[in-house]
Amino acid sequence: MPRYKLVIEYDGTPFVGWQFQAVGDSVQARIEDAIARFSGQQVRIQGAGRTDAGVHATHQVAHVDLDRDWPTDTVRDAINAKIRPAPVAILSAERVADDFNARTSARGRRYLYRIVNRRPPVALDADRVWHVKWPLDADAMADAAQALVGRHDFTTFRSSDCQALSPVKTLDRLDVERIGDEIRVFASARSFLHHQVRSMVGSLQLVGAGRWTKDELRDALDSRQRSRCGAMAPSCGLYLIGVDY
Amino acid sequence: MPRYKLVIEYDGTPFVGWQFQAVGDSVQARIEDAIARFSGQQVRIQGAGRTDAGVHATHQVAHVDLDRDWPTDTVRDAINAKIRPAPVAILSAERVADDFNARTSARGRRYLYRIVNRRPPVALDADRVWHVKWPLDADAMADAAQALVGRHDFTTFRSSDCQALSPVKTLDRLDVERIGDEIRVFASARSFLHHQVRSMVGSLQLVGAGRWTKDELRDALDSRQRSRCGAMAPSCGLYLIGVDY
Repeated sequence: MPRYKLVIEYDGTPFVGWQFQAVGDSVQARIEDAIARFSGQQVRIQGAGRTDAGVHATHQVAHVDLDRDWPTDTVRDAINAKIRPAPVAILSAERVADDFNARTSARGRRYLYRIVNRRPPVALDADRVWHVKWPLDADAMADAAQALVGRHDFTTFRSSDCQALSPVKTLDRLDVERIGDEIRVFASARSFLHHQVRSMVGSLQLVGAGRWTKDELRDALDSRQRSRCGAMAPSCGLYLIGVDY
Repeated sequence: MPRYKLVIEYDGTPFVGWQFQAVGDSVQARIEDAIARFSGQQVRIQGAGRTDAGVHATHQVAHVDLDRDWPTDTVRDAINAKIRPAPVAILSAERVADDFNARTSARGRRYLYRIVNRRPPVALDADRVWHVKWPLDADAMADAAQALVGRHDFTTFRSSDCQALSPVKTLDRLDVERIGDEIRVFASARSFLHHQVRSMVGSLQLVGAGRWTKDELRDALDSRQRSRCGAMAPSCGLYLIGVDY
């Protein structure tokens, strides 16, 4: 059966997350339903990353096996036509080899976390950013973030529900930049633990607010205790922006 | 009575526009209502520009006279507290001289128009951009736009409802740039006619699609006939991004 790689954008706000769940509306189930309605085929698609409820994607990747050898543009356009009005868009579909697996073939994932840092509320990007009212020192956050880059046991920054076999991961990049009112955190790794990015951003926020030093962030990491993590950043500021193969 | 200058951000999607109307929810009425609820005072605020239904603002300006000499941060925070959950935020409040008028003192207005130019639908920025599915040549649009810059009779690009005394305006800037899938049009002038930016962008889109040449755009301008305008671009892509004094 021909295998297709799909690149997907979605607004995570109305969904219980990427992954199919018994109760609630998932991005995965919506795409599977749209595929069924254009092809008549019941499929299970495999995503590169399981984004949580409220987390957005500008570049999620999934693969799916279809019975027929559809043109790639037909696959893209037919899913988009059937999935409306859900806020999900297939940006591209391409034929890939049978051994391509969106999850296991991925060599890297990239996330963006957006903070709007100002006292007034957010009118235009509500549900798209974390609104932090108190002043954050983005330079201090950028400096402290480097304590997390590299190969570490990230138990501190891992959900207690995380199903990964090992808490040891290599964080390739954790960059913080301020553009006006907005602070952007870019994170790259081969893979992440469950809630890792939001946990790291939550703790970096404490550094930005002057409540933690870089050394305290490093101590929290070294402690390998979930209880030492700062309050997790909300899901609405997180975007899956790339998966590399 | 002390006069305050307010800088305002809003999501135009749920509103009939900036200006108070007998029927429907306006940004102006929401702000006036919020001021009444914190100060007990019935006021009429004056905005720098009357954005249409669905048009957004990152930097609208208005002025208001209050009975009491409130601290500026109190004015900002109290309006924001009372206006929730409407997608309107007061970014700043400052005391200004009694002869400051948000509309008549303005020396310049700046607008941004956002087009997402790709075949797949827009999942994350629906209601925030104009989605144009066919390919647009942004370089051709950028070049043609220069035919509109300067002092002209803009009757072609003016709503038949426009109440301005004269159709002659000086367009200081009309720049077009592409960033990936997105085409951004920046327009600056002392003031604009009703529907002028959306009318110009609608016609520039025809140039981008290869249906009009730069000369045809210039001919449409020179004709001073509203019927020669290309179909107006939708309101959801337009942002008021600055008012200069």
